[in-house]
Amino acid sequence: MHAKRMAMRGVYKDILEREAHLFGADFIAQGTLYTDVSESGGGYDSGAKKHQIKQHHNVNLGFKVPELAPLSDQVKDGVRQIGKALGVPDAMLWRHPFPGPGLLVRIENKVKLWKLRVARQADVILVHELKAAGLYESVWQAGVVVTASRTTVTKGDGAGSGCVVALFAVSSVNGFTARPFHLPWEVLERISQRITNEIPEVGRVVYNLSGKPPATIEWG
Amino acid sequence: MHAKRMAMRGVYKDILEREAHLFGADFIAQGTLYTDVSESGGGYDSGAKKHQIKQHHNVNLGFKVPELAPLSDQVKDGVRQIGKALGVPDAMLWRHPFPGPGLLVRIENKVKLWKLRVARQADVILVHELKAAGLYESVWQAGVVVTASRTTVTKGDGAGSGCVVALFAVSSVNGFTARPFHLPWEVLERISQRITNEIPEVGRVVYNLSGKPPATIEWG
Repeated sequence: MHAKRMAMRGVYKDILEREAHLFGADFIAQGTLYTDVSESGGGYDSGAKKHQIKQHHNVNLGFKVPELAPLSDQVKDGVRQIGKALGVPDAMLWRHPFPGPGLLVRIENKVKLWKLRVARQADVILVHELKAAGLYESVWQAGVVVTASRTTVTKGDGAGSGCVVALFAVSSVNGFTARPFHLPWEVLERISQRITNEIPEVGRVVYNLSGKPPATIEWG
Repeated sequence: MHAKRMAMRGVYKDILEREAHLFGADFIAQGTLYTDVSESGGGYDSGAKKHQIKQHHNVNLGFKVPELAPLSDQVKDGVRQIGKALGVPDAMLWRHPFPGPGLLVRIENKVKLWKLRVARQADVILVHELKAAGLYESVWQAGVVVTASRTTVTKGDGAGSGCVVALFAVSSVNGFTARPFHLPWEVLERISQRITNEIPEVGRVVYNLSGKPPATIEWG
């Protein structure tokens, strides 16, 4: 996982730098919140700590990072209140958190093109069904993991094997702790059936039952 | 998985043969049901087919296999009715099905001693909590899979990694088809929390959402 994150960081930096220069950008707004500061630094004591974390993300890019207080003193619900007061559209305001290293942390073992396709297709189904059920904004964060687990399947014209996709949906106030969201069974089963019906590589779908702690919201 | 089953078959045969001879057995009662006949042979047409399946299991052991009709013409609910009429104790009568190759099919990749210990400890917790909730006899079959998936954990004094244990509990009439059982959330969460609290190697617990078809009841 560490090697995958390091590889991702290199690609991210190269693309960000290229696109930002093409765009003629002088500033980069990162959206660092109190949660990032606290979890990156292991504590939140001083402006020096905040500065250190921002430097860590931006030191080699040659852009100016504007001071984002009060955002960096707020957890997400505070930021959403500020956004709402400023008239930020709901679809942006209520979008679930997404991991910095992208789908890398949601794909176990080697990242392959077919796994990325599975991760994206399954995520589209999950988000669509949560919204259709009117539950998307009640869930703090939901996502899909393409696990290393495989299973026997009886799809189509015989027995074979398929990958196991895990769903997670959690309730949380600020991301520091989380509990599995009690989705209605009919929503869980509809999502599960759509994923195995519409994505040939998937043989089984499971739902995360663990909170944070002892687990984490993202698996990787 | 095929290699693991073949290895298991050899060990099973050796131990059965040794123990049966020590016991002075002339007969072996196998408990073959209609489900076994149908799923092994891909159909159920004739006495010859039944004979073939029994031979397949017993041909080299040198024991007589008594004719078990009407059991081999019945699926499990019929067998349970017969057992009830004969006064078979409830704990035997309502015991969940258990896979022939044992915990092999519930442990992904290499079978290690620690994985067997995890599989047994987690199964004890699952069965205990299902019984405590009065749900054991409503569930057709429940079990625990030690998956190949791993996850970040925040247990104890820092971040580490743990294995992912999957729970399954299904409703079914005869094992041919199955649906995930809608266990109450408080039971699912209690089982999940006990497993991660009491078994140090486990970092996360998930619950199976897939039916049969497209998946199978056992993963392996």
